[in-house]
Amino acid sequence: MSPVRIVIVGAGFAGYQAARTLSRTLRGAADIVLINPNDYFLYLPLLPEVAAGVLEPRRVSVSLTGTLPRVRLVLGEVHSVDLAGRRVGWEDPEGNRGEMSYDRLVLSVGSVNKLLPIPGVAEHAHGFRGMPEALYLRDHVTRQIEMAGTTEDPRERAARRTFVVVGAGYTGTEVAAHGVLFTDTLARKNTALRGAPPPRWVLVDIAPRVLPELDKRLSRTADRVLRKRGVEVRTGTTVKEATSEGVLLDDGEFIDTRSLIWCVGVRPDPLVEDLGLPTERGRLRVDRYLAVPGHPEVLACGDAAAVPDLTRPGQFTPMTAQHAQRQGKVAARNILASLGHGTPKPYKHHDLGFTVDLGGVQAAADPLHIPLAGPLANAVTRGYHLMAMPGNRVRVAADWLLDAVLPRQAVQLGVVPSWAVPLDTESPEIAETARVSGR
Amino acid sequence: MSPVRIVIVGAGFAGYQAARTLSRTLRGAADIVLINPNDYFLYLPLLPEVAAGVLEPRRVSVSLTGTLPRVRLVLGEVHSVDLAGRRVGWEDPEGNRGEMSYDRLVLSVGSVNKLLPIPGVAEHAHGFRGMPEALYLRDHVTRQIEMAGTTEDPRERAARRTFVVVGAGYTGTEVAAHGVLFTDTLARKNTALRGAPPPRWVLVDIAPRVLPELDKRLSRTADRVLRKRGVEVRTGTTVKEATSEGVLLDDGEFIDTRSLIWCVGVRPDPLVEDLGLPTERGRLRVDRYLAVPGHPEVLACGDAAAVPDLTRPGQFTPMTAQHAQRQGKVAARNILASLGHGTPKPYKHHDLGFTVDLGGVQAAADPLHIPLAGPLANAVTRGYHLMAMPGNRVRVAADWLLDAVLPRQAVQLGVVPSWAVPLDTESPEIAETARVSGR
Repeated sequence: MSPVRIVIVGAGFAGYQAARTLSRTLRGAADIVLINPNDYFLYLPLLPEVAAGVLEPRRVSVSLTGTLPRVRLVLGEVHSVDLAGRRVGWEDPEGNRGEMSYDRLVLSVGSVNKLLPIPGVAEHAHGFRGMPEALYLRDHVTRQIEMAGTTEDPRERAARRTFVVVGAGYTGTEVAAHGVLFTDTLARKNTALRGAPPPRWVLVDIAPRVLPELDKRLSRTADRVLRKRGVEVRTGTTVKEATSEGVLLDDGEFIDTRSLIWCVGVRPDPLVEDLGLPTERGRLRVDRYLAVPGHPEVLACGDAAAVPDLTRPGQFTPMTAQHAQRQGKVAARNILASLGHGTPKPYKHHDLGFTVDLGGVQAAADPLHIPLAGPLANAVTRGYHLMAMPGNRVRVAADWLLDAVLPRQAVQLGVVPSWAVPLDTESPEIAETARVSGR
Repeated sequence: MSPVRIVIVGAGFAGYQAARTLSRTLRGAADIVLINPNDYFLYLPLLPEVAAGVLEPRRVSVSLTGTLPRVRLVLGEVHSVDLAGRRVGWEDPEGNRGEMSYDRLVLSVGSVNKLLPIPGVAEHAHGFRGMPEALYLRDHVTRQIEMAGTTEDPRERAARRTFVVVGAGYTGTEVAAHGVLFTDTLARKNTALRGAPPPRWVLVDIAPRVLPELDKRLSRTADRVLRKRGVEVRTGTTVKEATSEGVLLDDGEFIDTRSLIWCVGVRPDPLVEDLGLPTERGRLRVDRYLAVPGHPEVLACGDAAAVPDLTRPGQFTPMTAQHAQRQGKVAARNILASLGHGTPKPYKHHDLGFTVDLGGVQAAADPLHIPLAGPLANAVTRGYHLMAMPGNRVRVAADWLLDAVLPRQAVQLGVVPSWAVPLDTESPEIAETARVSGR
């Protein structure tokens, strides 16, 4: 008899933890297969530090083969799940298709950029959901400052040194907070920009405060830090239209910019809708054991799953890394139980507080709901990330150390073109490369 | 009267040194403009370490604005030089054209991959001349090892773990020496490749020995290190044809591979031929003062210039970084003399020996023509590079330190597609991004 095959689709927080838990317990007694378009687990919370040039991209990319022994990695994007035949099909990075059967399936396919039906946004905005987008943004921002120094047209110069972030949630707030420090450094170094006004960052959100989903005290800290750095915080404001020249706000102001960063949130990976199973706002409905009703061999977790929140009856757990990670562990545990190891467990988790890394020595955090600000929050935040990362810790700490003592590196490698990171994509984790027919 | 404008085209070893020397002496008394497609000086000798994952790409990319105060950077590729009207024209990264006049011009446009008329090579091989190619290679090699672990077809598996380097000069030898260490690490970490034979590297050259242009003792050291690591050194051999499946050698053997790395050398940037001036094998003829005959306001240096070698009468200086760097300084000095600062100086330089970084603790070097091998040569080589780099030294040293104590990072970011780094390009320093019409 061939060993039981457990297939995990997606190596985000949920899928990575599921694979790790299974691998540690089964120790080779099952065929554990992880299907993911990349060979790394992306530690998303530190992505704004990559875009701001603090961390090298590979620092936040934890090798799957290197940290998950006894797990077989298949590079590919799953495009079909045959629930009746218990098979999954994928396409590999070279465009070849493959498929395999499973005995147990974990669907942890995550989420993609959320669009809003606003004219011009899909064409002119970029999201912030994967490594290619972060590298694009780092290069793009660097290039804008350099080209602001080259042009002699004052309006173009103003547009190039203006950056608009839409969405003041966790991601948008961090991108703006890190971004303004980054562009200040770039502009100071640039001979051609001596005496020019500093780069301008605008953070727009329809909500009445930044970090609307978090505790008010965190909001206040973040708001204060942002304003002190010169970021224009425009709450209660929405975007009416985006063009190649800039962005029109609903209060009538048109802001000249070449940089529109779209952080309004995420939606579940569209693969979920294709399954033909009951969903909740695009998320796959599961029971408290994370199993798909009618398919006990299929579990779902993370952003792509609508998991009942047992701490808030009638609601579903929010789409956060914290929940995804813990759900991945529970999914693994319940699969193990179905194979005769231990007992199943319902998913229940109280959130443990949040950390918002604001760059420099600033952060806002409420670990165990104790509100912190400033350098102490920063130390807690960085310590938390080092603990939470499943690998690369020494290298991340080394980059932080170097960034503290050396001037920020300011070069653009120019390897990710704008069209390779469209906002409206089902695969923010990989750069689009196959736009050319026949390749 | 507006200040004298000195335009430098290209920021390789020659152009960078010219800009630095001019900036330091003139201290703002002239308008120094550097036109380059990238915002960094690429320290090419360490590029094999980037491809092998030892150094982060930004480590070997030294910021131009950050290290060249009082020099205006224009991001662009020069496509036309009007010698009579004293104007240069360029295209910026967004495809817009610009032009400006000059009083003095330094042409330091460097070199590009040399092709040979061999069927299939332009389509299936990749060069190793710029950062995009190095990043492509790092990702490609990582992906090949991973996909070797996924496939169940033994022939495909063999092809994916086979890497062929053509050209055993400085670059090809270093790429193979570092590459085999890198793939050994990758394969060891990969659960699916346990028990499989190690990755295979083949180094092909028509010459009778590796490093044919260097001292025989360096060749012997490199040859010994390569063979000890399992690299198949195939001297006296050429490639007859390349296909998508592999490469046919002139001894009749067909090697299955998906990885053909083309390091047969370089040729001067084709811009030189477009000038309509006398050339020598594609290099612009200059006098011993690096001036273009008939155009005393135009100087050329580096790979793109045919500079009389005063140490070997009748010959021209070889295309090496050592000469380019020193010629850049002399070009700057002679421009300064033409502006009334100091006296002109003819270019004359004896080579100071070479260092070949073979990865691990191995190197071959002959500083001041004293042959060294092993860890001592390695220390000399790394020390030399740290001295020779115009910036980023602490970060490079930090990466070397981390690489010595931590396992090599093994992830592929997948941001540079194969078609973005064609072998036959006039711009190896930037990734092709504009293949899609209308973008």
